[in-house]
Amino acid sequence: MGRFISKRFDCLKEYVPGEQPQDRKYIKLNTNESPFPPSPYALRLARQAAGNLQLYSDPDCSLLTKTAADYYGVSDASVIFGNGSDELLDFAFAAFCDKDTPALFADITYGFYPVFAAKNGVPLEEIPLKEDLTVDLGDYKGKKGTVFIANPNAPTAIALPASEIEKLVAEDPGRLVVVDEAYVDFGGESVLPLIKKYDNLLVIQTFSKSRSLAGGRLGMGFACSDIINDLRKIKYSFNPYNVNAMTAAAGVGALLDVEYFRTNTEAIKKTRAWTVEAMGDIGFTCTDSKANFIFARHRKIPGSEIYLKLKERGILVRYFDKERLKPYVRITVGSVEEMRKLVGNLKEIVEEGS
Amino acid sequence: MGRFISKRFDCLKEYVPGEQPQDRKYIKLNTNESPFPPSPYALRLARQAAGNLQLYSDPDCSLLTKTAADYYGVSDASVIFGNGSDELLDFAFAAFCDKDTPALFADITYGFYPVFAAKNGVPLEEIPLKEDLTVDLGDYKGKKGTVFIANPNAPTAIALPASEIEKLVAEDPGRLVVVDEAYVDFGGESVLPLIKKYDNLLVIQTFSKSRSLAGGRLGMGFACSDIINDLRKIKYSFNPYNVNAMTAAAGVGALLDVEYFRTNTEAIKKTRAWTVEAMGDIGFTCTDSKANFIFARHRKIPGSEIYLKLKERGILVRYFDKERLKPYVRITVGSVEEMRKLVGNLKEIVEEGS
Repeated sequence: MGRFISKRFDCLKEYVPGEQPQDRKYIKLNTNESPFPPSPYALRLARQAAGNLQLYSDPDCSLLTKTAADYYGVSDASVIFGNGSDELLDFAFAAFCDKDTPALFADITYGFYPVFAAKNGVPLEEIPLKEDLTVDLGDYKGKKGTVFIANPNAPTAIALPASEIEKLVAEDPGRLVVVDEAYVDFGGESVLPLIKKYDNLLVIQTFSKSRSLAGGRLGMGFACSDIINDLRKIKYSFNPYNVNAMTAAAGVGALLDVEYFRTNTEAIKKTRAWTVEAMGDIGFTCTDSKANFIFARHRKIPGSEIYLKLKERGILVRYFDKERLKPYVRITVGSVEEMRKLVGNLKEIVEEGS
Repeated sequence: MGRFISKRFDCLKEYVPGEQPQDRKYIKLNTNESPFPPSPYALRLARQAAGNLQLYSDPDCSLLTKTAADYYGVSDASVIFGNGSDELLDFAFAAFCDKDTPALFADITYGFYPVFAAKNGVPLEEIPLKEDLTVDLGDYKGKKGTVFIANPNAPTAIALPASEIEKLVAEDPGRLVVVDEAYVDFGGESVLPLIKKYDNLLVIQTFSKSRSLAGGRLGMGFACSDIINDLRKIKYSFNPYNVNAMTAAAGVGALLDVEYFRTNTEAIKKTRAWTVEAMGDIGFTCTDSKANFIFARHRKIPGSEIYLKLKERGILVRYFDKERLKPYVRITVGSVEEMRKLVGNLKEIVEEGS
């Protein structure tokens, strides 16, 4: 730390994104990216928008807002966009938590939540997952604060049914529930339609996974207009032009190209099923994944060893050095070809180990 | 305000960007955009990068960092990029100000500074410009805090010589000075080279004006590695992938296309000189602009009237409803054609008024 940084960041530990080593070419199954390029229509619109970059982007993302509102059947005033969903999550931690309103989330979930809390100087309470790594929303009952739920959860890949989340939202109208649905398009149940029924629900989604725009940076938030207006207040006090013009255009294309979206998400679900079965045959147990990644443990080999041996063989997966996660690796569902190579290599690693 | 937003934002008044009315086609001279499209090379690289948007952008912006470091003759460790310079300015307010270290800046300067201070919950002290709207850095002597200087200043367009800023930086090595050089490429003197000499200097620039990438969102910061590391800590605790892949690529092209940059900045300076002279002929006084905009007052007609009458005629400029600024309008230097139309319309407005 330099000598000018405020003492309030003394304990801030920044987030560590998945590694991107440059020493050789890897099969990258460590950051949950899509194996498919963006929709050709999204690409055409992005490239067209590039020609006018001398002009500021539209701070209200008007066309994108209208497109998303139509697509999801909500009003324009219920939608906001961010420079990735991380930005919107940060806005939510800033706006809706403070010293009297802690952030409540699972002890095993998206690793950025505690960082957002620390950066915004708000207290947090981590609520342990059950032994089987599922979330029991009963544990949140009566707790004061703003609840953050990743659904499906990361890195466990396990999803909660929408009905359970609705119960949590309904039971305390005075408490805000933020549902981070980054991975919902791969088999989870979205609670997005419930924003019309409850004014204490904020749903955040991303274009990074199911819509192949990770490098474009686009996240979206849905809630009643009061909550969206509060998030807009933060946005306009920070970076009104937070979404660049090319990505705003790409987002429109990605939403309108419904066929491409469906084909790709179905392909990933199919590849996921194949991979889970193939890994089962060589001694792995996978959680019930509703995401574009698999969370797997081998009955003999610890996660760190699998991670290291795959890396030696040119395949990157993610391993978390956290007590209950040590047996596991998190593996992005890539292309069929990539998953065949993964399974082939895992087979060799398992055979070596026995 | 909704019922969930934290009380600490009760007094937060968000920034209001220049209007973008959709009712008719305007000549937009109100947000200091470039009249020139991005460099063809920048465009080619951005469009190429679009094809791989399914992958996250490089959080370290490695190629862009190397390109900028080479271009400006500093080390890679001295450079950071933001989603526009607004984001980097916010990071600086967050990192380098707190209750014991107020933000110090001119009472008339970039209107976002007080918003950044309020959003980050840090105190501020506004230091009045002199009667002639110039900054007297002597006024900052002995004051405790982090100094923010826009140079050239906005909306006055007036620049300080680098030597005066160096004196301020040198006189108190225990105080950080942040120089916002958004408009420096149009005739100002950059203090960027001084980051190698002083470890209490942070220089922030933007690709929005002189490099025609306003809609791409790209800002850059230069300082000693300690300061850059502190800013990185904020970035990695907020949005590691803050710069999208298309814009990072465009930035490389915009830096390397030196000829295009020089031609455009020279053209704007020439058009500025022509406009200032033509406006002088019809009773306007302009400050000594070193920016891509003109700050002008008429000897008889108040700023609000000029603004309104130009708007009726399809030309947008900016007027600030702040005591000392009431006589003025801020006019972006657009294309030769646009400025001819502006002057023609101003002439008619002046004649009507007399």
